[in-house]
Amino acid sequence: MRALDVILKKRSGEILSHEEIRFMVRGYVDGTIPEYQVSAFLMAVFFSGMTSEETGHLTREMIASGDTIDLSSLPGPFVDKHSTGGVGDKVSLILAPMVAACGVRVPMMSGRSLGHTGGTLDKLESIPGYSTALSPGRFAEIIGTCGFAMTGQSERIVPADRQLYALRDVTGTVESVPLITGSILSKKFAEGADALVFDVKTGPGAFMKNYDEAKRLAESLVSTGRSLGKQIVAVLTRMDYPLGAKVGNFLEVEESLALIGCPAAVDRVPADKRSAGLREVTLRLGAWMLLAAGAEADLAAAEERCGQTLLDGSAWERMRRNIELQGGDINALEEALGTMRAPVSAEIVAGSSGYLSAVDAYRVGMAAVYLGAGRGTAGDDVYPDVGFDVLRGPGDAVTQGEPLARAWGHTRDDVDRAVETYLSGVSIVSEPVERESSLIIEELSTL
Amino acid sequence: MRALDVILKKRSGEILSHEEIRFMVRGYVDGTIPEYQVSAFLMAVFFSGMTSEETGHLTREMIASGDTIDLSSLPGPFVDKHSTGGVGDKVSLILAPMVAACGVRVPMMSGRSLGHTGGTLDKLESIPGYSTALSPGRFAEIIGTCGFAMTGQSERIVPADRQLYALRDVTGTVESVPLITGSILSKKFAEGADALVFDVKTGPGAFMKNYDEAKRLAESLVSTGRSLGKQIVAVLTRMDYPLGAKVGNFLEVEESLALIGCPAAVDRVPADKRSAGLREVTLRLGAWMLLAAGAEADLAAAEERCGQTLLDGSAWERMRRNIELQGGDINALEEALGTMRAPVSAEIVAGSSGYLSAVDAYRVGMAAVYLGAGRGTAGDDVYPDVGFDVLRGPGDAVTQGEPLARAWGHTRDDVDRAVETYLSGVSIVSEPVERESSLIIEELSTL
Repeated sequence: MRALDVILKKRSGEILSHEEIRFMVRGYVDGTIPEYQVSAFLMAVFFSGMTSEETGHLTREMIASGDTIDLSSLPGPFVDKHSTGGVGDKVSLILAPMVAACGVRVPMMSGRSLGHTGGTLDKLESIPGYSTALSPGRFAEIIGTCGFAMTGQSERIVPADRQLYALRDVTGTVESVPLITGSILSKKFAEGADALVFDVKTGPGAFMKNYDEAKRLAESLVSTGRSLGKQIVAVLTRMDYPLGAKVGNFLEVEESLALIGCPAAVDRVPADKRSAGLREVTLRLGAWMLLAAGAEADLAAAEERCGQTLLDGSAWERMRRNIELQGGDINALEEALGTMRAPVSAEIVAGSSGYLSAVDAYRVGMAAVYLGAGRGTAGDDVYPDVGFDVLRGPGDAVTQGEPLARAWGHTRDDVDRAVETYLSGVSIVSEPVERESSLIIEELSTL
Repeated sequence: MRALDVILKKRSGEILSHEEIRFMVRGYVDGTIPEYQVSAFLMAVFFSGMTSEETGHLTREMIASGDTIDLSSLPGPFVDKHSTGGVGDKVSLILAPMVAACGVRVPMMSGRSLGHTGGTLDKLESIPGYSTALSPGRFAEIIGTCGFAMTGQSERIVPADRQLYALRDVTGTVESVPLITGSILSKKFAEGADALVFDVKTGPGAFMKNYDEAKRLAESLVSTGRSLGKQIVAVLTRMDYPLGAKVGNFLEVEESLALIGCPAAVDRVPADKRSAGLREVTLRLGAWMLLAAGAEADLAAAEERCGQTLLDGSAWERMRRNIELQGGDINALEEALGTMRAPVSAEIVAGSSGYLSAVDAYRVGMAAVYLGAGRGTAGDDVYPDVGFDVLRGPGDAVTQGEPLARAWGHTRDDVDRAVETYLSGVSIVSEPVERESSLIIEELSTL
C-alpha cells in the first residue's frame, strides 16, 4: 500500500477501507509516512469528508496507537460526558457525583482551560489539596469506591491524537468534523467509557459558533458511535451567554456545590434562579447518561431521579467522598466558600436603562482569561480566586448604574481590562427581549 | 505573515494576494515554510482553485525563483509552442524551422519522453551528432543565426517548479489546473518567450483524456496569459490515434523532414496522405505563432505563408542550418533516412476484415515504450531506431491479414510485446466509420 494512493482515493471522494485508514494512522505514528503526505491527506479529508464507518475506523486506529484504561476489575457500564467547551460550564462537577449517586459509574477524564473556555481540571484544582493527577490504578480504585473519579489525560493514551492534532494545528485542518470526531471519541473510549453523552455547544461562547456546524458534529459523533457499536447521545445546547451564575475556577466550584446540596455551600453561597439554565442542562445530560447506561428507560423518570440526588444529599455524599479520595481538604474547602476571592474587585454596571439583550459568552470568557481564570497560551498559570459573579443575564430589566456583574482579579490593570471586555459583550435595548425558555436545542442519540 | 493563515484563506476559497503567493513560493524555496504546510496548501489549491490573477502571481513568483534566459541582444518577439504531450507528436520539429522561415524567432525548450508520450529532445538526438545541451549564450547565438534553437531545460530555470513538482507528485496534488498552468507558463516565460502557442491535446493518447479537463487547462493558460499581459493561444486537438504516419525517434525525424521538404527525405521516405493530420495541426499552430508575434493579422494568410515555407525550401534551409549549428551531421542524417532501423521487425496485421474504428494512441505509445522509443522511468535509455510505421488509421477499410503497421525493435520479446499491445488498441468493425475531418477541436486566445 502507498500513502499516495490513499491520498488520491480520499481526494477523489472515495471511501477508504479500514486497512487504508490503519495504514495512514500507523504509518504516521511510526514515522514511515512523512508529515507532508499526512498533511495533504488531512486536507483531502477536510474537503472530501469521511463516512461514519471511516470515522469509526479512524477512531479505532487512534485508540490502538496507545494505552487504554482497563476498568474490567469493576462492574460496568461506564458512562462519561464530554462538552465541546463553553463559558461558565461547570456541568461536570455536578453531573459526575449526581450520576454516580444514581448507581452509574463515571470515569471522567477532563481537560484544562484553553482559549476563552474554562477547564474542569483547573476548577477542581481550586479545591484546596485536590489532585487530578491519578495513576490508572488509582483512577479505577476511586471509581470503585465512590462511583466516579476525575483525572487528566495520560500521555500514553492516544498518542496519535497528540501528533495529529499538532499537525492539524499548523496545516489548517483543525475544523474537520470527522477529524474532530475521531479525536474526541478515541480519547473517551480509550479511557474506558462504554457510552458517552456529549454536550455540543453552539453560539458565540462555543468553539462551533454556528448551529449547522455544531449539528454536523453532533450527527457525526452519534453516527460514528453507531458504527462502533457504542451508545452515544449528543445534546445541542446554547452557549450565547455564560452558563449559570459564576465564571472562574473556585467561583464555579461554589455554584456547583450549592446545586449539589453541599450544606455549607447552600448556607454561604446559595444558588438562586440564575443557576436555572445550568441545572436544566446538567439534569438532562445526567438523565441521558442513565439511559445510555441502561439504568433507566424513560428520560423524564431519569431526570427526576437525578434531581432527587441533589436534594437528598446523595450527590453531595458522593462528591464529599471523591474530594477526600482525591486529596481535597473538606474543611479548607468549606472555609473558602464565599471568601476565596482575589484582592481587587470591581462592579460592572449598566451604562443605560432597559433590557439586557446579550451578555456575549465569548467576551466574558476572554475577560475571565484576562483575570487569570483561563489560559492565553497552554502552560500559563491560572488563579483559583478570580472571575465573575454574573448578576444579570439576557432578558433581565436593568437600570442605569445597576451592577450587572462583579469581577475579582489580582491587579487593577487585569480588572480594568476584564471589565472593559465584559462590557463590550453587553447589549442593553429599550424594548423587552424574549429569552429562549430552554438552553437545550436538540437531542440526537443511538438509543 | 504566517503560512497557516494563507492555507486557511485558500481553504475557505478566498483569493490570495500577490504578497501571500510570493510568501508561500519564496518560503518553500528558501526552506522557511516546512513541506507539511506547503503540501496542505497545495491540496487546498487543488480543491479551492485559483483565479487567473492568482495563477499569474504564482507564475511570476515561480519565474523569480531562478534564472531567466536573456534574449535581449536579439530583436524579438520570441514565440514558442508547447504541447501537453501525445503519441507521434513531432510537430515541434517541423514548426520551429517553418516559423523561423517566416521571420519569427523561436526559442524552443523541450522535454524528454516520459510515460507513453514521446519527447522532442529524444527525437532530435536521434539525428547523428545533434546536441540539445546548449548554454544560454549558445542558445541565443543559434536563434540569432538561423531563427530558432532547440534545447533542454536548464537546472537553474524555475527551481521552484522542480521542488513543487516533486512534492505534488507524492502528495496527490499533480492534477490541479492552476498548479499545472503555473508550472508550464513559468518555464516557458523564463526561457525568454514573449508569446506562446499551446497544443492542448485530449483523448486516449493525451495526459488529459477528458475534453472538459483539457478545456479547463486551455482556458486557464489563456486567462493567466491575459493577467500576465502576454499573448497566449491554446489550440485543443484530438489525440485519439497517433499523430501522423510514424512513431519512434528517428522515424519521426524522417516524417518531419519529408514534410519540411528536405530533398533526401522527400526522395527516400516521402510523406503521403497519412501525414495529413500532422500537417494540419502544424500549419495551424504555426499560423497562430505568426499572429501571436504580430507578423501576420489573418489566420488563413498566416497558414498559407507557413505552408509555402514547406514547399519553397525555406523551412528545410532553416532546419539544415540548425542541424549543423547544433552539431548534427547532414550526410550521416541523409544516409540514415529509410535505413536506420532496429534489427527485429514484424508486421501488425488485421485480424478481420472491416473498417478500422480505433487505433488507440495510448496503447501505441505504450507499445513504443516497450520497443525502447520512450521511457518507462525517468533516466531510462531510449533507442533512436525503433518504433512503428502506421500504415492504416481510423476510417480505413481493411482486409483480414493486411498489415496495419510495421514495428522495429531490438529483441523478439520487445517486438512481440509491442505488437500485442498495439493490437489491443485496434478495433475493426463491420460498418464504415466516419472519421472526424479535422484534428482541431477548438481555439482560444488572448488575441
